[in-house]
Amino acid sequence: MFWVYAGIVVSIASFFVAGYLYQWVKQQPGGSKEAEEIAQLIRNGASAFLRREYRVLAVFAGVVAIVILLFLPTPIWKSDFLTNLKMALACLVGATLSASAGKIGLDIATIANLKSAVASKKGIAPAFGVAFKGGAVMGMAVVGCSLFGASVLYLLTKDANAVLSFSFGASTLALFAKAGGGIYTKTADVSADLVGKVELGIPEDDPRNPAVIADNVGDNVGDVAGMGADLFDSNIASIAAAMVVGLALGQEHLVFCYATLGLLASILGVLFIGMGKHRDPGRALNTGTYITTALYAVLTLVVSLIFKYDLRIWGATIVGLVVAVIIGITSDYFTGDNKKPVEKVAKASSIGPAFTILSGFSYGLVSCFPALLGIGFSALVSYKLCEPLGASYAMFGISMAAIGMLSIVGMIISNDAFGPIVDNARGLVEMANMGEDALVVSDELDAAGNTAKAITKGFAIGAAGLTVIALLGAYRETVMSIAPEMDISFNIMDPLVFFGIMVGVAVPAVFAAMLMLGVDRNAERMVAEIHRQFETIPGLKEGKPGVRPEYEKCIDIATIGAIKELIPAGLMAIIVTLVVGFVGGVHAIGGYLTGNIVSGLFLALLMANAGGLWDNSKKYIETGVHGGKGSDAHKAAVIGDTVGDPFKDTAGPSLNTQVTVVSLISSLAANLFIALSLF
Amino acid sequence: MFWVYAGIVVSIASFFVAGYLYQWVKQQPGGSKEAEEIAQLIRNGASAFLRREYRVLAVFAGVVAIVILLFLPTPIWKSDFLTNLKMALACLVGATLSASAGKIGLDIATIANLKSAVASKKGIAPAFGVAFKGGAVMGMAVVGCSLFGASVLYLLTKDANAVLSFSFGASTLALFAKAGGGIYTKTADVSADLVGKVELGIPEDDPRNPAVIADNVGDNVGDVAGMGADLFDSNIASIAAAMVVGLALGQEHLVFCYATLGLLASILGVLFIGMGKHRDPGRALNTGTYITTALYAVLTLVVSLIFKYDLRIWGATIVGLVVAVIIGITSDYFTGDNKKPVEKVAKASSIGPAFTILSGFSYGLVSCFPALLGIGFSALVSYKLCEPLGASYAMFGISMAAIGMLSIVGMIISNDAFGPIVDNARGLVEMANMGEDALVVSDELDAAGNTAKAITKGFAIGAAGLTVIALLGAYRETVMSIAPEMDISFNIMDPLVFFGIMVGVAVPAVFAAMLMLGVDRNAERMVAEIHRQFETIPGLKEGKPGVRPEYEKCIDIATIGAIKELIPAGLMAIIVTLVVGFVGGVHAIGGYLTGNIVSGLFLALLMANAGGLWDNSKKYIETGVHGGKGSDAHKAAVIGDTVGDPFKDTAGPSLNTQVTVVSLISSLAANLFIALSLF
Repeated sequence: MFWVYAGIVVSIASFFVAGYLYQWVKQQPGGSKEAEEIAQLIRNGASAFLRREYRVLAVFAGVVAIVILLFLPTPIWKSDFLTNLKMALACLVGATLSASAGKIGLDIATIANLKSAVASKKGIAPAFGVAFKGGAVMGMAVVGCSLFGASVLYLLTKDANAVLSFSFGASTLALFAKAGGGIYTKTADVSADLVGKVELGIPEDDPRNPAVIADNVGDNVGDVAGMGADLFDSNIASIAAAMVVGLALGQEHLVFCYATLGLLASILGVLFIGMGKHRDPGRALNTGTYITTALYAVLTLVVSLIFKYDLRIWGATIVGLVVAVIIGITSDYFTGDNKKPVEKVAKASSIGPAFTILSGFSYGLVSCFPALLGIGFSALVSYKLCEPLGASYAMFGISMAAIGMLSIVGMIISNDAFGPIVDNARGLVEMANMGEDALVVSDELDAAGNTAKAITKGFAIGAAGLTVIALLGAYRETVMSIAPEMDISFNIMDPLVFFGIMVGVAVPAVFAAMLMLGVDRNAERMVAEIHRQFETIPGLKEGKPGVRPEYEKCIDIATIGAIKELIPAGLMAIIVTLVVGFVGGVHAIGGYLTGNIVSGLFLALLMANAGGLWDNSKKYIETGVHGGKGSDAHKAAVIGDTVGDPFKDTAGPSLNTQVTVVSLISSLAANLFIALSLF
Repeated sequence: MFWVYAGIVVSIASFFVAGYLYQWVKQQPGGSKEAEEIAQLIRNGASAFLRREYRVLAVFAGVVAIVILLFLPTPIWKSDFLTNLKMALACLVGATLSASAGKIGLDIATIANLKSAVASKKGIAPAFGVAFKGGAVMGMAVVGCSLFGASVLYLLTKDANAVLSFSFGASTLALFAKAGGGIYTKTADVSADLVGKVELGIPEDDPRNPAVIADNVGDNVGDVAGMGADLFDSNIASIAAAMVVGLALGQEHLVFCYATLGLLASILGVLFIGMGKHRDPGRALNTGTYITTALYAVLTLVVSLIFKYDLRIWGATIVGLVVAVIIGITSDYFTGDNKKPVEKVAKASSIGPAFTILSGFSYGLVSCFPALLGIGFSALVSYKLCEPLGASYAMFGISMAAIGMLSIVGMIISNDAFGPIVDNARGLVEMANMGEDALVVSDELDAAGNTAKAITKGFAIGAAGLTVIALLGAYRETVMSIAPEMDISFNIMDPLVFFGIMVGVAVPAVFAAMLMLGVDRNAERMVAEIHRQFETIPGLKEGKPGVRPEYEKCIDIATIGAIKELIPAGLMAIIVTLVVGFVGGVHAIGGYLTGNIVSGLFLALLMANAGGLWDNSKKYIETGVHGGKGSDAHKAAVIGDTVGDPFKDTAGPSLNTQVTVVSLISSLAANLFIALSLF
């Protein structure tokens, strides 16, 4: 039990760190009345959206909890009430913690944006410090919450199923929060760009644009709350998967040990990060990541030696860690500013927009190869590494690789939240006219934030990949424990398994399409509203002093649309899973999960990388190549960027969560599938 | 042996039918001197390309044959020379027959285009008759060649391995022919459209456009020769797969029986097709397909009853047949003129090109669901249907479903070749000024050809899907026969299998990307050349009488580029397969094939349907909605169409063949993988 308590202690420590950083950021000097006003608008818009979204999701979580109470792990009339109640409560707690993590992140991000904007008048180092510390609040809160929740829950129940249900609650909330946030942010972003940049030729973040506040709100609800919920969910899921396999081996203490040390390494990394003398924000972020990685490797090695844990397990976590870094580097290659793909896509843009799309999409396809190879390879190596310890240890090895990959998640979330904070800060500098110097500083931070986001996205997908493979193992473990007499080899040549694979492959595609069509529909409405405002509000287009667009209308459209569109896609994935399970049984589900994992990862990588590539190709052209801003090449690149936005910020990142949710349901409902399936 | 001889007789009958139709088409009246000249240009361009392509492929096939001679089925120093020689020769014969089928199709298509154009002056019925009969020559030749080759080869060798090698030769040739033809046709099409329609606003097929002849050549080398090679290859592969499984059961006569009856049904269908009184070419094509389908179902039922074959086998073939029709209908829904997706994408185009891309891509994603479900379901049903006959009969059921799906392939190829013939005819009518009436007729035939193409594409992918599942079964059968002591359940939880799946999923993505980037590079060169001609040839832009562009230069660029780009992508797929096999062994290959099949099918469906959808949305707007031709919506739709062109005509259809080739190599090299793999 030592490591469970250690987990609780370290996660409480992370709360203190988060609280300290929160206070520190809050005490930084505020801005002019105008800036405060705009920041307040963003804050209100974000809070209002989150409130409405959470109200819908509370109902949904309630329904799910009742379903769990009635049916899981076994129908209530066949089981004892307490077990089912425990499951239902665990699910609710998971959902609540996930929601809280999102809320905390949003609160700090909508404070830190203004503080960082104000600090950017003093130079790059202070502005970077404020933004990074703001992001770190989120990082600490998310990882702290997840480890704290898992530890306490395990202490109270000693039941792996309850941890699965906890994870399921968190994932389901994350699924809808990400879909909703993703639709919101891209509706606003795409509409603002389309009318502002493309039609009227006014700059980004121009206060005349009625959608500009909604756009800034979107960064917060999509990138901060959404990404936080996603990584919260991956983190919990990796712990849950490792727990299921680990408990069967009596090795669950190792899970807590490695997860706790990961949080510790992240805390230390976050506290010691700084700009250094090079004044390069991107380098500072990367250095932080490398330090955390190295710290984690050393800490776990030392602990393993002291406690005489088998070094093969340690090796498995390190494999996961190394692959995480490699996937990050691959994403960086395919989306990085000064790399070949960006240059090629920029060059293709000078022929026409169709070539922007074709070349960016093609590079996106290629970019999947190294990442999928890396995930498959790390699963293979960690499996083979731990196989000598005993048959079931092999699967435990994979789940420990997932734990290793997610060990530095505290640092990753901090880097990731940095992006939308500085993006918002840039918007505030522009909208509140804070001056040219501040704009240069905030531009530089924004660029660093973009690169960091591409890398953390690759990381998030890789982490989800290993986690869901581990969950597949957990699913098998669950089936074995329920029906030990069953043959649970999921043989591809079994037509039920194959059928499952085919359906599993199709689901992420439909899921992604539903979200993107949601953005399409929503953006149509918002574009119409922006046009209406420019036409009917006198003086708006000309920028007459004192004339303000009706920002709230656009915020309303984004909010209502996102709330309406966020449920169907997620529900589709859940329902198809249940149908496959009740029709084809546990074997079909084994295939279904595999198909879902591979196609989910593939599409997520494709969309994240192609989206990032288009975005940076546009920025690359804006530096003056191929005619620079306003040229035909630039117009083509803007079209690519607009296509890429829902790719990389709506559909792509939601796919991770879809795969996780589906994997968790399968484990939870395994009992029912065994008892009730058609085949 | 009865059915083997019957196969030979019926395939010879199909040659006679093809010869008769060929002569009939050739004797139709020719056109004016101008029209003959242009048709000659197209014919010469196509022949020149095919000659150069086949020269490269002959070298390649020679190398492959030598490799087979040395290593397959076992290294020559361990095996007897004759067996290996038989394999090598079978491969060469397969490649030669595949090449001949392509050549015959090309010859007739480049004759029928002019004859149909001339006939269109007399009305729609004569023009339809000529074009359809031209396509039927191809259909009969392709299916006849494949059944004839397989029957004779079986008669001579009685060796399933030799049939596999024959199929491999045909598939490899198809792989490169389709890649080369696909790159050629889209290079020319995209470049011609980009400069002609988008920049200069001149109509399609305007003789001033230097790329216009290359574009018409491309239709022939890409759609006729390429598609013919593809379906030739699927047809052979389905026979080979069923033979491998069937021979082990002593049921190979059933394979020949069902394949022979399929060809017979197609011959009858082709002979009795006609316009009827409704004068609707699309309906005429569909009626032909339905008649053939019904004929096949009745013929096989009667034969099964007479010969007392088990009706479960008959059921399996009918399942395949029905699913083929269903997939065709799905493709029609997602790409059809008067259906919701086309309307939605057209509407999205009125907001901007990014929305054209996003909505079309999203519907493309959704369209994969029913088709994948259908393929998975038909595999499941045919398996379960035949399972009561004995364990190995289950897999035989799947391979017979593939045979059933491909039974009507003769009719399908006829319909498919109809498309490029009428497309070319329309070009000739325009370029040779044959008058407004002829243009209306040829436009109507062109539209029917487009719809038919979308349906046959869906069919081709579905057929390939079932075929490769059958090949997966053949692969397992091969491994079992080589190493009966081996555990050949490909369990997903085996990390080697899982690793294989991950790599397998990535390969079609990289393959597709390489082809599309090839089109990109090539089109860049050709666009530059078109610009050069318009700038340096006086009077060309203005259409001064007597001034002709240098068509040959564009044909040269397309030819050289396609030859250069066609090898790397296919080679990559082959090499990765060998690497996975030699590293991970037969289990990794089991996973690899599965991953390759699902992702190959998924991408092929996505690309074919999204491409068809964009194409038809553009055409829909051209009928006058959302502002019609020249409007912003139309410009956006043209961008979508340009993106869709390499999707649907280069990468999409080549993916089928990639999957088939990889499946065949795996079976052929299974012996080596077992002996030499690292793990």
